[in-house]
Amino acid sequence: MAKRLKLAKENSERSPRKRATSYDVAELAGVSQSAVSRVFQDGASASKDMRDRVLSAANKLGYRPNAIARGLITQRSNMVAVVISRQTNLYYPEVLVQLTQRFSEHGIRVLLFTLDHERDIDGVLEQVLQYQVDGVVTAAILSEAQLETIENASIPVIFYNRTLPERLVNSVRCDQEEGERWLVGQLVAAGHKTFAIVSGPEDSSVSMERTRGALQKLKELNIKDVLIVNGDYGYASGRAAFAEIQQKMKTLPDAVIAANDVMAIGCVDEARETNYLRVPEDISIVGFDGVGPARYAAYDLSTVRQPVGRMSEAAVSMLIERIENPGLSPEKRVFSGDRILGGSAILADGEK
Amino acid sequence: MAKRLKLAKENSERSPRKRATSYDVAELAGVSQSAVSRVFQDGASASKDMRDRVLSAANKLGYRPNAIARGLITQRSNMVAVVISRQTNLYYPEVLVQLTQRFSEHGIRVLLFTLDHERDIDGVLEQVLQYQVDGVVTAAILSEAQLETIENASIPVIFYNRTLPERLVNSVRCDQEEGERWLVGQLVAAGHKTFAIVSGPEDSSVSMERTRGALQKLKELNIKDVLIVNGDYGYASGRAAFAEIQQKMKTLPDAVIAANDVMAIGCVDEARETNYLRVPEDISIVGFDGVGPARYAAYDLSTVRQPVGRMSEAAVSMLIERIENPGLSPEKRVFSGDRILGGSAILADGEK
Repeated sequence: MAKRLKLAKENSERSPRKRATSYDVAELAGVSQSAVSRVFQDGASASKDMRDRVLSAANKLGYRPNAIARGLITQRSNMVAVVISRQTNLYYPEVLVQLTQRFSEHGIRVLLFTLDHERDIDGVLEQVLQYQVDGVVTAAILSEAQLETIENASIPVIFYNRTLPERLVNSVRCDQEEGERWLVGQLVAAGHKTFAIVSGPEDSSVSMERTRGALQKLKELNIKDVLIVNGDYGYASGRAAFAEIQQKMKTLPDAVIAANDVMAIGCVDEARETNYLRVPEDISIVGFDGVGPARYAAYDLSTVRQPVGRMSEAAVSMLIERIENPGLSPEKRVFSGDRILGGSAILADGEK
Repeated sequence: MAKRLKLAKENSERSPRKRATSYDVAELAGVSQSAVSRVFQDGASASKDMRDRVLSAANKLGYRPNAIARGLITQRSNMVAVVISRQTNLYYPEVLVQLTQRFSEHGIRVLLFTLDHERDIDGVLEQVLQYQVDGVVTAAILSEAQLETIENASIPVIFYNRTLPERLVNSVRCDQEEGERWLVGQLVAAGHKTFAIVSGPEDSSVSMERTRGALQKLKELNIKDVLIVNGDYGYASGRAAFAEIQQKMKTLPDAVIAANDVMAIGCVDEARETNYLRVPEDISIVGFDGVGPARYAAYDLSTVRQPVGRMSEAAVSMLIERIENPGLSPEKRVFSGDRILGGSAILADGEK
């Protein structure tokens, strides 16, 4: 027992885990603790000599002003939670990087939460709250009850690419329906008469909006008997979906509308490789998102690009406004996607 | 003035920013503050009646035990910093998601730091330290001085896909050189005699290791006059690099070795579209990483896949071990990549 204690002591001496405090720095520098605080506080006054002594002592002790402790005093943690679901949708990582960089320009750090599926949100919600973040950007949908829990904790929330239509919430979205309506309008105007839709995961509200937008426009244009098959946003599921379409329809449709680019790429490959079809001569295929691979020459998708830069900028500024001014009324911002005429589909405007 | 005060008061009543404390909960529940603590502490005892009263009061007040404050007491923040550079290398987002999910299984949250370039690390380092994280996983290289600063703060560091060869550091890497040596060996054994290399960004240590590995093996096999051109890991730079190779060499090489898959895809498209070359019949092209698009049928790259799952698992367990036991000696783990025989290159093993 004595030996174990001794070992523990040696260990702790070898690797000092205790962090230096402002008092330790004050003692070594021969100044008061409040002088140390002043040196590390933006805009507070301290003489050059004082500053030099404190910084030298702080450096020697490995002392850093504790952003977290400061947060406890100011009631601000300077951290926000970003919740993303781990879908195979390639554009989310880009969103994440954009959000992180923009928040960091405001001195705010991103605490990252990932979900396997949007429906797993309950498990992370409690964690989000325990870390006392100043705000939340969520790319997963919340229920009324979940939103209420966060609001009770006075934490502002921005929905990213989602919204609760009948509720006062802040949201930043790409106009999924408008984008799909444009694609369908273009395809029909170019003479396509039969359609199939490859929708995304069932718990993805984005996929639901896209499919609804496409269906609605097709209906308005008197296109009937549209086959809908399901994918999971991934490449393999796009290939499988195309095979399923072929199996279920007597003749292949004139056009396939995929709920994202990656599944559209899967459809293109399955059409070419397994069925020796030419894209777009034999069949038109369109996607959504505008991810990097959509621009690879082998695919050159006709698609709608989400304006990720503008959307993340809006999410960051809306959240910061609401952290600083909690009384601000809710706002929903909807961005139109960029329309891209690629070589994967024959579109009316592309023929001009 | 009186009116403004009144408005401010109303605002603050409407949106109470002050968070409820354990004392507020204790008062409402009619119990002691230590009873509240016990209810929220894992494994501590509390009667069912006590628990119900406390939880009901906590819910009413929107109270959550403060993970951050708890961290100040335990000297653990239960947060780790993950530093990634914002390169166009597609596999980083996957690494990030994997790390975040594995840390969260241990109750540890990821505070995310992104860099535009690896050399920007200085700016974020101070921030990393101020947030008093328990540890750091960095996919950006640190200088000796930077590493020393972190170590002085008693924060363990794991280098991801990087290392400092002459220093006692913890690192998890894919064996870049071994992977390139295998690719070169396969290409030469299949009869390729002339080569060009598309390397990545100049500040990427991963790209340097890959290029070095390829060059070394080519030299050992008596292949001379290897042209090296530079890209930035992005698709467009791969296309530009292929055009540059064509311009600089009198005849095209038998094989192009790209430092990552995305540039290899750019090379394939440039070879096909601009030069009407067949891949691999006219020219072999290989990549590295094993990202999703490398498996798209139009490219089907011969490449080496980084075992991201095993590497991130190793990084997480190594960091947690060192947080819990700071005296642990350093360890460098090197994982071999998975060798993928694709259709983009004629390789010796592919001909068997």
